Amino acid sequence: MVDALRASATIITAISNGCDRIVPTGEANEAAAIKKISEGNVLLCGEMAAKKVSGFDLGNSPLEYTQDIVEERIIIFSTTNGTVAIKTLAPAEDVLIGTFINAEAVAKKAISLERDVVMVGAGTKGKFSTDDMMAIGCIIDRMLKIDDEIELDDMGRVALKLYHDANHDILGALEGSTHFEYLRQLKLYDDLEYCTREDMFDVVPVYQEGVIIKG
Amino acid sequence: MVDALRASATIITAISNGCDRIVPTGEANEAAAIKKISEGNVLLCGEMAAKKVSGFDLGNSPLEYTQDIVEERIIIFSTTNGTVAIKTLAPAEDVLIGTFINAEAVAKKAISLERDVVMVGAGTKGKFSTDDMMAIGCIIDRMLKIDDEIELDDMGRVALKLYHDANHDILGALEGSTHFEYLRQLKLYDDLEYCTREDMFDVVPVYQEGVIIKG
Repeated sequence: MVDALRASATIITAISNGCDRIVPTGEANEAAAIKKISEGNVLLCGEMAAKKVSGFDLGNSPLEYTQDIVEERIIIFSTTNGTVAIKTLAPAEDVLIGTFINAEAVAKKAISLERDVVMVGAGTKGKFSTDDMMAIGCIIDRMLKIDDEIELDDMGRVALKLYHDANHDILGALEGSTHFEYLRQLKLYDDLEYCTREDMFDVVPVYQEGVIIKG
Repeated sequence: MVDALRASATIITAISNGCDRIVPTGEANEAAAIKKISEGNVLLCGEMAAKKVSGFDLGNSPLEYTQDIVEERIIIFSTTNGTVAIKTLAPAEDVLIGTFINAEAVAKKAISLERDVVMVGAGTKGKFSTDDMMAIGCIIDRMLKIDDEIELDDMGRVALKLYHDANHDILGALEGSTHFEYLRQLKLYDDLEYCTREDMFDVVPVYQEGVIIKG
């Protein structure tokens, strides 16, 4: 599952910084309801319209999820696109969370499964989102570096072309795309820069039995 | 509705060559059943797995739909992707049939409607197909030439980029894509060349009340 701007990056960062597990939820009120019946070490996190939900501990900026804040905590996490997409994947055998920042790691893990891989872009409000497609292209690029005999479908080939055409200037290549411009308008420059770095983390979060943990 | 390889091109050619109307159907047996209860001037046409259906008058090669064969005839038409896609669009207010060969004409007609336009690629067996996406990019290019203030979504921008990157060598740019390679393997070179020519026809077939007619 890829939600390049920004849920994948937030999840990877939180898991890398030692959070115990993440519970992906639907809309913010669902997250708040789960928080009410939970006890202890829980952080209520997420966004609506890309902004931190009122009363929540953290929003959806990966930069907020530092070790001192998230280590050993349980995160209840609600986002508009990413967590919704993750929950729909519950029937799948293995659900890996990936994006630019862990592309090589998630590619390696996906190949090691020795099965067909379906790349799911979270999209933006149910629509195709260029940022996800380019991150998927980045992961495919890394998979091909491990095994150049992987077969792609048409959408996979287009994703790979988008990534290659960007020539590592992901930020530049995303100019004009809908969700990127929305976040830029909110002046989330640091998030955009962070979310489009390649291969920063060796961590692959996995979703199983309702929670996201370190794979 | 765009089915670049080949239903859009076949429909445009048949309508341009004077066929009275086309009745799009689902699978071949549906077309055959309709033929049985029809009388008179009817041709039974279409493909399964890109090949002419046994017992049908014509397949899905636009080159078969010459004036001497189709003029004033009614065509019952069954294809794997295109006619199925057209039928799902019955609830839409206006359904235009387009592809490379009538790109400018369909762009002009779409703009003249002064409404939001949804581009529907027929795909290949329910999946994204690069040929349709590139034809959609070609139509968007023509629309922008008429009105450069049209707003695109992310998928529209990707389609336009695919078309522009092809730089009029559509055949070359489609190399490696699934449906293109399938038709090439069947040695349908003339069809591929014909279907990827730009702006050959000024005709825009429309689908209304269950039939496709000249717009």
